Amino acid sequence: MTTDAPVVVDTTGAQLAEILAAASTAAPDLATRTPAELAGWLDAVASALDAQADTLLPLAEAESHLPARPRLAGELARTTFQLRFFGNLLREGGHLGATIDHADPDWPMGPRPDIRRGHVPFGPVLVFAASNFPFAFSVAGGDTAAALAAGCPVVLKAHPGHPRLSQLTGRIVADALAEAGAPAGVFAVIHGVEAGVSALRDPRISAASFTGSVPGGRALFDIAAARPVPIPFYGELGSVNPVVVTPGAVAERGAAVVSGYVGSFTLGAGQFCTKPGLLFLPAGHGLDAALAEAAGAAKAQPLLNEHIAGGFAKGLATLREQPGVSVLAADPADPTDPTDPTEDADPGDRTEDAAAPRPTLISVSGRDFAANIEVLRAECFGPASLVVTYADTAELLDLLAGLEPSLTATIQGQEDEADLVEALLPPLSRLAGRILWNEWPTGVTVSWAQQHGGPYPATTAPGTTSVGAAAISRFLRPVAWQGFPLAFLPPALRDDNPLKVPQRVDGELRLP
Amino acid sequence: MTTDAPVVVDTTGAQLAEILAAASTAAPDLATRTPAELAGWLDAVASALDAQADTLLPLAEAESHLPARPRLAGELARTTFQLRFFGNLLREGGHLGATIDHADPDWPMGPRPDIRRGHVPFGPVLVFAASNFPFAFSVAGGDTAAALAAGCPVVLKAHPGHPRLSQLTGRIVADALAEAGAPAGVFAVIHGVEAGVSALRDPRISAASFTGSVPGGRALFDIAAARPVPIPFYGELGSVNPVVVTPGAVAERGAAVVSGYVGSFTLGAGQFCTKPGLLFLPAGHGLDAALAEAAGAAKAQPLLNEHIAGGFAKGLATLREQPGVSVLAADPADPTDPTDPTEDADPGDRTEDAAAPRPTLISVSGRDFAANIEVLRAECFGPASLVVTYADTAELLDLLAGLEPSLTATIQGQEDEADLVEALLPPLSRLAGRILWNEWPTGVTVSWAQQHGGPYPATTAPGTTSVGAAAISRFLRPVAWQGFPLAFLPPALRDDNPLKVPQRVDGELRLP
Repeated sequence: MTTDAPVVVDTTGAQLAEILAAASTAAPDLATRTPAELAGWLDAVASALDAQADTLLPLAEAESHLPARPRLAGELARTTFQLRFFGNLLREGGHLGATIDHADPDWPMGPRPDIRRGHVPFGPVLVFAASNFPFAFSVAGGDTAAALAAGCPVVLKAHPGHPRLSQLTGRIVADALAEAGAPAGVFAVIHGVEAGVSALRDPRISAASFTGSVPGGRALFDIAAARPVPIPFYGELGSVNPVVVTPGAVAERGAAVVSGYVGSFTLGAGQFCTKPGLLFLPAGHGLDAALAEAAGAAKAQPLLNEHIAGGFAKGLATLREQPGVSVLAADPADPTDPTDPTEDADPGDRTEDAAAPRPTLISVSGRDFAANIEVLRAECFGPASLVVTYADTAELLDLLAGLEPSLTATIQGQEDEADLVEALLPPLSRLAGRILWNEWPTGVTVSWAQQHGGPYPATTAPGTTSVGAAAISRFLRPVAWQGFPLAFLPPALRDDNPLKVPQRVDGELRLP
Repeated sequence: MTTDAPVVVDTTGAQLAEILAAASTAAPDLATRTPAELAGWLDAVASALDAQADTLLPLAEAESHLPARPRLAGELARTTFQLRFFGNLLREGGHLGATIDHADPDWPMGPRPDIRRGHVPFGPVLVFAASNFPFAFSVAGGDTAAALAAGCPVVLKAHPGHPRLSQLTGRIVADALAEAGAPAGVFAVIHGVEAGVSALRDPRISAASFTGSVPGGRALFDIAAARPVPIPFYGELGSVNPVVVTPGAVAERGAAVVSGYVGSFTLGAGQFCTKPGLLFLPAGHGLDAALAEAAGAAKAQPLLNEHIAGGFAKGLATLREQPGVSVLAADPADPTDPTDPTEDADPGDRTEDAAAPRPTLISVSGRDFAANIEVLRAECFGPASLVVTYADTAELLDLLAGLEPSLTATIQGQEDEADLVEALLPPLSRLAGRILWNEWPTGVTVSWAQQHGGPYPATTAPGTTSVGAAAISRFLRPVAWQGFPLAFLPPALRDDNPLKVPQRVDGELRLP
């Protein structure tokens, strides 16, 4: 299958111009569509992807080195669920933010006119796809689903890590949309750095989203902010996802904490934005041997591509060479390992191992971590994690205060440690968009309450989420209509509420 | 009174460091306060300001040249209403966005954990006050009210146009907060460009808001975006607020349109961000004489300060010298007026007039406007407006497509012109955050449905509003709690809902 697929070439300037013109033309059309129509399109895309699973999965496996089953099949199921989830959300209508204030001559600050507020689509959205989730954060992923649900045309910049999968997925999505009655220009895939940057600078693009690295995301954020007309840039960048283990958890269920942790940081070869990169353990925890054994037993898995493998090797080498850092478990083939038994072997022998490293676990004391925190708090994308031992609660809180914000922060604790937990919750909620109790951060459910975001560098837009129901609001813009006859108002803002959406009327929330 | 007030000096670096440290210390305290506590503080501030009206109004009049009554008294009433309005909003609790998804083993994409989402305060907020509303968009204005309501400490950069009023208002606010039980550091006023820029660059500031000019706002936006940790910058910048008058409206009530328009563009000496700066009239409207008469009869009013007077004179001179622009009514003392009868008088005679110009109304054909649109579409802050005649609907839509976004856009039309109105609504909703029907854009009510925002350059954050209930969400950040025992959850996210807030439970919106 993969050898039959056409070679994917970069989108040319002329092709991009056509795509942007079509998106721009489609935008006002989409703004007139009902939530039910948009929901039907999302359902059609989901069904088309499900129907093509047997073609998509092998291609995804070949390009990403992730196993087709269960991993990629599960990710595809999550992706099509997500499209349908947004469809259901559209039919409920809460996303429209319908708010009606009738005229009130007695309004205390002076007579109030009739004024009604609702949400309209932003316009064409540029989505930069991620490498590590070839379905769920890529062509038909969460950002695409949220933007289409909002009624925005999508220009999707494919990730170079899976170009043929992106092309095929893009074709399936575009065909399904067309068949469902969506206008031309509603969706297109573009390839190449130059096309992506040109699109980001184009005045017809009204918002952009991104999932990837801090340097890449920051460069694009800077371009979006420097435009003559700056646009919102929703970037999900870097996250170290600290986990705090309390003394009680160590005493009660240390072994379970160890296996949960190693399972989480090695999942998908550690290539999750929610991978726990830091584990805070109380000094004298006595779990070193168990950690070494569990990490040592974890299997090697191939990384997504050479670029990521190179970045991982470099990042890990930097962490390992810091003062006070010791190795609990490491890939025996790792050339940077000072105890490496294959040190004198031909470097050619290590090519395979470098692309499929066994997990590495390193350790450092709280004091050494604090002394070198700017280096040691950095995310290392891939199968590695750092255990930090803390002397007491005061040192733990100091160490947490020195971290950068993340997507997640986790407490492994006991309910009878209320004082400690209450001390940890405020700093952790300042540090992350999602806080977990006795669970592990990898695995992000798609639901109404999900929050996948956080202050910079976790994201460039800390008030938003890229997963879950609220992700749609990134692509919606409020508009108020003042003094309009009912016939000219959007249906969601009419008194007879023909769409049966939740409305706030004269301050009071009303369900249909 | 004003001569007794102390001279206001710029905030020093040492003073700023203390203020930022105190705000940073107050932030976690504020995050633990209940909505009812915060509401009590806002009420206390409102009452303290109302009680000091007799001191505040003369000082505001002396510094802003705006009349104490009815203008400034009305603005103060609006300001204290706004504080109380946010208090009521807090007590209702919808701003907390409480969302509860219980664990669901049958969730279609895979078992769902218990996950609950709510909003927490951003942290210390820097507010840049405006010149043209010394109460409502200044020290105790909308941004301060919204940020305090969100539970964020506020560092308020005073506008240099009313320094003593800012100092006095700041003292009243800080004293009222302290007396109501708010912690130290919850509110402070700073003075001077350097202090403002230093604060904006400080890592302890987590978001900023601004109301003012495009160049000033853009410079600050660029600083916020270029920080090592970029922060949200909610800037309200420039707005020309187009008004479209339909043929039907001219025929049915041309005289009323003329008087409404002149009243609106001259209100407050044209120093409103919602001033109608462009009026589109059908060619052959026959209203030139009425427009000239109404504008000519409008009184001269002093402008806020010399800086604004200078900018107005320069901007108006540029507009007037463009090809095809003719003058319907102008200040006879205006030295740039080619028909100026006082042309040969001593320039010294004109000092007073330049600071208190009579309104100017200029006119241009649609064709000349289109040929020179980048100059003629610009906002001219002060008592001037431009009438543009359009030949037909096609030309009108072309002209609208060439405008930059605004805070408002207005239709003066008749209900029986449905085809024309339906053609105008889509472009106007892309162009503005608030659309008006047969009303005038000046005068912005504070209510649940208000939207005071729009795409750039109207604002730097098109998904937000700076007036009305939704203004609070600019300073709130979502956090999800996953798997937590009820005892450790924020009250709004508990199943027993002790705060009686609206909750979305397993997808279903529920009222308490």
